Amino acid sequence: MKKVQELTLSAHQLILLGQIVSDHFTAGISDEGVFLASNRRSHLMNSKSILIYDTTLRDGSQGEGVSFSLLDKLNIAERLAEIGVDFIEGGYPLSNEKDVAFFKEVRKRDLGETKISAFGMTRRKRLKADQDPGMNALVAAETPCITLVGKTWDYHATEVLGVTLEENLALIGESAEFLAKHAMVIYDAEHFFDGFRANPPYAIETLKAAASAGAKWLSLCDTNGGSLPERVAEVTAIARQELADYDVKFGIHCHNDCELAVANSLAAVDAGATQVQGTINGIGERCGNVDLISVLSNLALKKTGYTVLGGRSLQSLTELSRFVYETANLQWQSSQPFVGQSAFAHKGGMHVHAINKAAKTYEHIDPVSVGNERRILVSELSGRSNIVALATKHHIADDNALMDKVLAEVVRLENRGYQFENAAASFDLLIKRIAGSYTSHFEPIKYRVVAGDRDSHGDGQSVFAEAIIKLKVGDKLWFEAAEGKGPVNALDAALRKALLDVYPSLAKMRLIDYKVRVVDSGAGTAASTRVNIESCDENESWGTIGVSENIIEASWRALVDAVEYKLHKNG
Amino acid sequence: MKKVQELTLSAHQLILLGQIVSDHFTAGISDEGVFLASNRRSHLMNSKSILIYDTTLRDGSQGEGVSFSLLDKLNIAERLAEIGVDFIEGGYPLSNEKDVAFFKEVRKRDLGETKISAFGMTRRKRLKADQDPGMNALVAAETPCITLVGKTWDYHATEVLGVTLEENLALIGESAEFLAKHAMVIYDAEHFFDGFRANPPYAIETLKAAASAGAKWLSLCDTNGGSLPERVAEVTAIARQELADYDVKFGIHCHNDCELAVANSLAAVDAGATQVQGTINGIGERCGNVDLISVLSNLALKKTGYTVLGGRSLQSLTELSRFVYETANLQWQSSQPFVGQSAFAHKGGMHVHAINKAAKTYEHIDPVSVGNERRILVSELSGRSNIVALATKHHIADDNALMDKVLAEVVRLENRGYQFENAAASFDLLIKRIAGSYTSHFEPIKYRVVAGDRDSHGDGQSVFAEAIIKLKVGDKLWFEAAEGKGPVNALDAALRKALLDVYPSLAKMRLIDYKVRVVDSGAGTAASTRVNIESCDENESWGTIGVSENIIEASWRALVDAVEYKLHKNG
Repeated sequence: MKKVQELTLSAHQLILLGQIVSDHFTAGISDEGVFLASNRRSHLMNSKSILIYDTTLRDGSQGEGVSFSLLDKLNIAERLAEIGVDFIEGGYPLSNEKDVAFFKEVRKRDLGETKISAFGMTRRKRLKADQDPGMNALVAAETPCITLVGKTWDYHATEVLGVTLEENLALIGESAEFLAKHAMVIYDAEHFFDGFRANPPYAIETLKAAASAGAKWLSLCDTNGGSLPERVAEVTAIARQELADYDVKFGIHCHNDCELAVANSLAAVDAGATQVQGTINGIGERCGNVDLISVLSNLALKKTGYTVLGGRSLQSLTELSRFVYETANLQWQSSQPFVGQSAFAHKGGMHVHAINKAAKTYEHIDPVSVGNERRILVSELSGRSNIVALATKHHIADDNALMDKVLAEVVRLENRGYQFENAAASFDLLIKRIAGSYTSHFEPIKYRVVAGDRDSHGDGQSVFAEAIIKLKVGDKLWFEAAEGKGPVNALDAALRKALLDVYPSLAKMRLIDYKVRVVDSGAGTAASTRVNIESCDENESWGTIGVSENIIEASWRALVDAVEYKLHKNG
Repeated sequence: MKKVQELTLSAHQLILLGQIVSDHFTAGISDEGVFLASNRRSHLMNSKSILIYDTTLRDGSQGEGVSFSLLDKLNIAERLAEIGVDFIEGGYPLSNEKDVAFFKEVRKRDLGETKISAFGMTRRKRLKADQDPGMNALVAAETPCITLVGKTWDYHATEVLGVTLEENLALIGESAEFLAKHAMVIYDAEHFFDGFRANPPYAIETLKAAASAGAKWLSLCDTNGGSLPERVAEVTAIARQELADYDVKFGIHCHNDCELAVANSLAAVDAGATQVQGTINGIGERCGNVDLISVLSNLALKKTGYTVLGGRSLQSLTELSRFVYETANLQWQSSQPFVGQSAFAHKGGMHVHAINKAAKTYEHIDPVSVGNERRILVSELSGRSNIVALATKHHIADDNALMDKVLAEVVRLENRGYQFENAAASFDLLIKRIAGSYTSHFEPIKYRVVAGDRDSHGDGQSVFAEAIIKLKVGDKLWFEAAEGKGPVNALDAALRKALLDVYPSLAKMRLIDYKVRVVDSGAGTAASTRVNIESCDENESWGTIGVSENIIEASWRALVDAVEYKLHKNG
């Protein structure tokens, strides 16, 4: 890399250097390094920027088992903005109150350059655009972008919407025109590839209706996910050619029904699309949307000629992926390309042997470039780089001996079902304990909860929950009982009752989310139970974790950590 | 389809008719049906046969968490032969006794036309081929095919094997020549695409060494999974051209590290490869091998010009996929293309409305063509059309008054936090209750759980959970207590204790998953708690749901529904 260092590099080029090294890495031939690196550098200076449009919060939430709370959506939006995603589709304001609240709340967050978009359909057939509730809900969202979805397929216009082909063009045009007065309009051409097959000239007419009315982006949607890459490339190129006289850019929106969503998205980019719509981890209806993790990694690290996220590093992709899984309360997919726990795991004896001799030729990219890591031992679920990444936030990364101890403890806990991605407060306490800087503010002696239904017939009226706790603060013993709406609520109430006199700051703390997952689902309710609790005070929110075969014990551990974190934080 | 029926069809053409209909189906335009179908028929008569090489039992078993017993391997081999897979790679006889036993036992099974292959590496550098233990283990497997893997990449030959480039060619040639005396040799060119990038002429030389020595197939392996489709197509075409004078055919072997394994395999087929290697469900090391389910479905149902499995139907693919998951003791992947439980599930209200109007245009293939089925999910985004579609399965869709009541009840329950998409069994019971066809098999009177930690210091040793329940079956009262690993486990145990005498079929039922989610996360542990329980017996699995502010009560409701569903199911 010497020659590269001798060059005078601009700040932007320096940012890209991580990417250059990664790319050189994939070549795997050290002698060509300098050539490739400098060649790549000049190439990147001419590279095309591909914008990333995330719809995890809208299309992703259509996935089976996915349901985001308002806070979940706000937290995910912040993370997406942090990595530099260009657009975030926040929701469908007409469909529910939660999405309306999201657009209001998200304006209070700092999302940097990232633009929020509200999603909605063309106006109803018998209403003027300015009288249509959907149109007005979109405008009321007060977002810088609005994503308008319209019908491409002639059959859908006539049979599903029940309008003539001419009327459908008017729906698209008038809706886009109305919305363009309020925000930048991204037009999503639903079923574009199927519609184009059925009636090519009409499909193109729908794009022109949107473009003439002021849409700045035309996003071609493979809504059913049934298209093949060669077809996506061909049709995208035709659409660009047909719209050459309009001031519009093209996006691509793929679904994974043929396991070709990534290939289709890349094919569209090669055919000139400059915006890719998708979701983190590919969550979404049926087989999911295209996984933006794979799109980003392929565009930045595998293909040449493209820049994403303004040239930023992809090193937080693995953490982002896991954060979204945890927030959606979904299992991680260990075989997930680029960011999965198994993506750089080596099992076969032959391979592991060779890896020790020539590590880099057995991995298609440097795992670090996406924030992931190599794993040789199957039992080892996490590893050093993960810990280093987490610990960096806690300013202890320079202490190698401490890091070794932390790593060993994390591996031990992960084998018991702990995951710290969504429990940074518990991780912080763990580091303090190992570093010797932890002081417990109270010592739990025992607790008991009783919960049930007193002789009712299932109407819930006589359901009860009580908790009794005994704990020590300094030399003083506290024995308190409390009722609650459930056993965890009762425990929380009893804990506060005991501690509030000594620690009045707890009055400002409250629990805002509670999640439970069976870690090994092979044994049903007898398997290990992982509880995540999210707490907040007037300044911030924090996550804690507890794991036990007993859900009450797991909840208790997460509760104790939540309170201890608050007390440590306040000194 | 009238014109097609008027033609005189051969037996083979009749088999293909299902495929023709499926293809017509994807077009979705009824007026063009006859044209497309007859066009497609003549096309299929000239279609190219692509052979399927399954390595689930060898490369698939390298996947994390995958371990097959001898019986597992034999059972999977029989299923693969049943659907008409052309080659089955059974194992690596040098590596373990189980694989040696497999090759002995599998000869006793009737696998029809399917050929078994044994897998091994080129001879060791200091041994003659006929003295090499690996070579002799391959011959001793007595299989009709042998798959020989050799090094393509110059760097691997010199640095990993420690031989000169010339010696590596001799290893390949002499090994292939020796094995070709005993079986048909398939040569797997390891790291072919990486090797070709590093040293194109040498990579081609390794192929020629195998071909000259009698290998009948050259399978190009993207061992690291790092290649892009355009590169796979280009390099496959070059290799074919360079080997034009040899009597060999080409195979492709892809891994999914860039989420492009399916696209890469299809690209190689388009470039002339006529054998595809992969695994069922894409199990395999790291991100897995290419999923043969997707390869088969795309080649047979989506692309034109190819025949697989001798033109057989793909209707057993869904069952095969689930059989392999069960045998490997892996969770089904619900979003899996073509065969996943969610692959034809519809959630968004807008879509569901449209599906009822124009079902076929919302699915890229007929789910039946791969043995899958359409599912309508009931969720927070649902409306009346969702309920109508779901209820169709319960044969009550014609009863408008009943539908109104069901809809009103679903809306009421959804507002309280219920979500039925993952709880079809609870939904079934709900319809029965409203329709008046529900009879409770037992009447819960009261229950109580006690859980806690008896005077310990958080080491979990003294954690306990107990449950007491009182219920009525007919005129008889039952009062039972049980201990468990957690409160839900204790409740489940007490419930069985009370019911097992009266309902012995419950002995076959067990809980397999348990999930908890706070529905409105604004109020922490005092908010509503949604519990989903997945249960199974020897025949099927079913989901139930319970919602309450109290997690114990929510769990109890889901448990009661799980047991009631089982008892209703059994009449």
